Amino acid sequence: MHRSKLRAVAVLLASCAAAPTTDAAPAAACDRLFTRALADNAAIATLANLLDAAPKRLSGSPGYDDAVAWAMAQMRAMGLHNVRAEPCTVPIWRRGVELASIAGNGRQLRVTALGGSVGTGDDGIMAEVVEVRSFEQLAALGDAARGKIVFFNRPMPRALRRTGSAYGEAVPQRSNGAIEAGKAGAVAALVRSMTTAIDGHPHTGAMSYAEGVPQVPAAAIATADAEALSALLQRGPVHVRLQLTCATVGEGPGANVVGELTGSERPDEVVVVGGHLDAWDLGRGAHDDAAGCVHALEAVRLLQATGLRPKRTVRVVLFANEENGLRGAKAYAAAHRDEAARHVAAIESDAGGFTPLGFTCSLRDAAAEAVRRRLLPLQDFGAGAFLPGAGSGGADLGPLLALGVPCYGLLVDGQKYFDYHHTAVDDLPAVHERELALGAAAVAFAAWTLADG
Amino acid sequence: MHRSKLRAVAVLLASCAAAPTTDAAPAAACDRLFTRALADNAAIATLANLLDAAPKRLSGSPGYDDAVAWAMAQMRAMGLHNVRAEPCTVPIWRRGVELASIAGNGRQLRVTALGGSVGTGDDGIMAEVVEVRSFEQLAALGDAARGKIVFFNRPMPRALRRTGSAYGEAVPQRSNGAIEAGKAGAVAALVRSMTTAIDGHPHTGAMSYAEGVPQVPAAAIATADAEALSALLQRGPVHVRLQLTCATVGEGPGANVVGELTGSERPDEVVVVGGHLDAWDLGRGAHDDAAGCVHALEAVRLLQATGLRPKRTVRVVLFANEENGLRGAKAYAAAHRDEAARHVAAIESDAGGFTPLGFTCSLRDAAAEAVRRRLLPLQDFGAGAFLPGAGSGGADLGPLLALGVPCYGLLVDGQKYFDYHHTAVDDLPAVHERELALGAAAVAFAAWTLADG
Repeated sequence: MHRSKLRAVAVLLASCAAAPTTDAAPAAACDRLFTRALADNAAIATLANLLDAAPKRLSGSPGYDDAVAWAMAQMRAMGLHNVRAEPCTVPIWRRGVELASIAGNGRQLRVTALGGSVGTGDDGIMAEVVEVRSFEQLAALGDAARGKIVFFNRPMPRALRRTGSAYGEAVPQRSNGAIEAGKAGAVAALVRSMTTAIDGHPHTGAMSYAEGVPQVPAAAIATADAEALSALLQRGPVHVRLQLTCATVGEGPGANVVGELTGSERPDEVVVVGGHLDAWDLGRGAHDDAAGCVHALEAVRLLQATGLRPKRTVRVVLFANEENGLRGAKAYAAAHRDEAARHVAAIESDAGGFTPLGFTCSLRDAAAEAVRRRLLPLQDFGAGAFLPGAGSGGADLGPLLALGVPCYGLLVDGQKYFDYHHTAVDDLPAVHERELALGAAAVAFAAWTLADG
Repeated sequence: MHRSKLRAVAVLLASCAAAPTTDAAPAAACDRLFTRALADNAAIATLANLLDAAPKRLSGSPGYDDAVAWAMAQMRAMGLHNVRAEPCTVPIWRRGVELASIAGNGRQLRVTALGGSVGTGDDGIMAEVVEVRSFEQLAALGDAARGKIVFFNRPMPRALRRTGSAYGEAVPQRSNGAIEAGKAGAVAALVRSMTTAIDGHPHTGAMSYAEGVPQVPAAAIATADAEALSALLQRGPVHVRLQLTCATVGEGPGANVVGELTGSERPDEVVVVGGHLDAWDLGRGAHDDAAGCVHALEAVRLLQATGLRPKRTVRVVLFANEENGLRGAKAYAAAHRDEAARHVAAIESDAGGFTPLGFTCSLRDAAAEAVRRRLLPLQDFGAGAFLPGAGSGGADLGPLLALGVPCYGLLVDGQKYFDYHHTAVDDLPAVHERELALGAAAVAFAAWTLADG
């Protein structure tokens, strides 16, 4: 055999690492978790309970306290250890009246304030609308946007299969549109809702202001109305009346909710499983992120029910204020900085309660490969996708990733996610009991194998 | 290197066949098809058009003629060649009044006649109900079922991840329940609907009779009512009134609809892509199987739109009478028996318009492996699952498989399929535009690679 052939064989052998090989015991554990999740069908009832107990739970609102109370009671009822609320401070932002219409004919536009926006004042504003599809286009307008409402109308690119990638391309106009509008001397920002669908309900979400830039009100407009407004602008100037009485009114207390399944051999070592307990206030946040909270809680229940108690502690962390500040995530990392090295993994589910496909992983190379092999049994359950080098896998895990904790995010079939995301229709009927249960089983297996290995 | 080591390497190399390796050109073709499918978003409009043109299209009903007319017009508008209706003969079965209630309190039970059932007579019947969960349990009753209504109440086992497998376990009571009830001297069969959900709408479907066994009426009962009836039976005897005026009224004409994208180099060689044009009459059959018909039509449109015209002919076949007789499938195989050897593949989509996961394949071993490699580009689009040795992959392909044609079935994420299957709610809102488009792209790529290679 020539040396070159040997090298070719070596390369092939290395690529063989990608071929599935599964130990019997982990495969059996995986099967037990998925079978139990579907047979018990408990996840959907837990989800319904959370939505009923705390239908409106934006952090900083009274409803968030209901969510904390529910989560603590739920964890205690499950027999988790060290159940507690870990405090943090959160912004308090109140939604108010939100109205928009086309001046002249009075046609209503379906809008909602972006979270954190200043208001227009009780009398509202009226101004001409100027449409752009990029910040570059806005900058090129120069003074032409002064005194106007900037209408950011870049669609999420529907041709991208991963809807999260499409969101990533379009969302800067929501996050930073008010800043750019303020810089341009505009009086408000009107942002096309973040969805590939053409629908009639606005999608809210976080926005920000920058030091030294005038703060202008910012609202999302339903995509159907964005299309109509754009068509109208083709015909000539359009003025819009906009009234938003939202306001940030200071800061107040918030809390992450934490509870543990204590490890049997190395209780000081921790695998975090989590989601965020807060949600935007338009709907009940069934997918975003009640589903993630339920995935974490149900994962631990499945470990209890199947007797798969791992060697390390599995810690459920339901984070506060993911949607508008990440204060819960930052507070958790600060409070647990000293035990960061004993966090062997952190797993978040924040992509919806859809059919699970696999996990992202912050690790790379050999470290990632070792984890990929541990997760191979998920292949038989349709959840074998594995994306290494993928960052935190969830916004709440960013601060832990910065401390060196290996982070994982549940991947799900997200084709429909942005139909519901941050809207009034993100409610119980949007979640399927079997898909939700499968996600919980996937999180349970990942937590078990990372906490037990 | 020892011989044993060489053998070990050989084994490893063989297992390397499972590692993904993708040629650039097929990968680029796959990307073009998926990107175009999502960008154009045409599939959902085609689906809506079919549902509007032929909302009720059980073969043997006048509505089926509307479906044939629509399909031929659609194919002609697309510029397909050799568009034609290929005739077959189908049973004509008419649904009528269908009512059931609990004698004594009059509580209504939500029922629907199983397709092909005889009626009860206009006056209906009233009889005591006896509940069983298996044919063995019914046989063990001996004469105790005589004169009664046999209530087959075996649930689809929800713990199975593949809902199709769960269906397979429970569906014999629907297919053959009337035969077994007839043998036992019962007066009717009442069958728990085929779904893992507990819902309030009955799911119809095919049933059969056997020579020499008395024909008794058979109806499906909504699972919620099945649960309630079962609970009532725990407390004592229950009598049910049942009225079904359905009847088989002979046979009549039906037709498969066929059209072709002629191959550029070997036009006499054929890849069939198909679904079934008929549907149960309770809803509009959006998933079952308008989605499959649209997958086939849209797949060919995508090949046209992307300029990926394959060497062999891609023949769209929309089959008649899949639901209650397979007469269309049998007629197609009989009419094309002489060219069976020139059918290089047949692909059916009959599992719903959900996110595509991959394909089943009737081939095994090396032949299957060669196809698996050709389909590898689908992995990057979440549709890389490949199940060899899996039979026809669609009921309509059974007669072609028997003629030696390699057969493929589109695999989709079927967690929700049996929520809609054979019910009034299998309608447009149950289908998601992006998921439907992705399925069409998967069929398009499979058809292209099998027709071009």
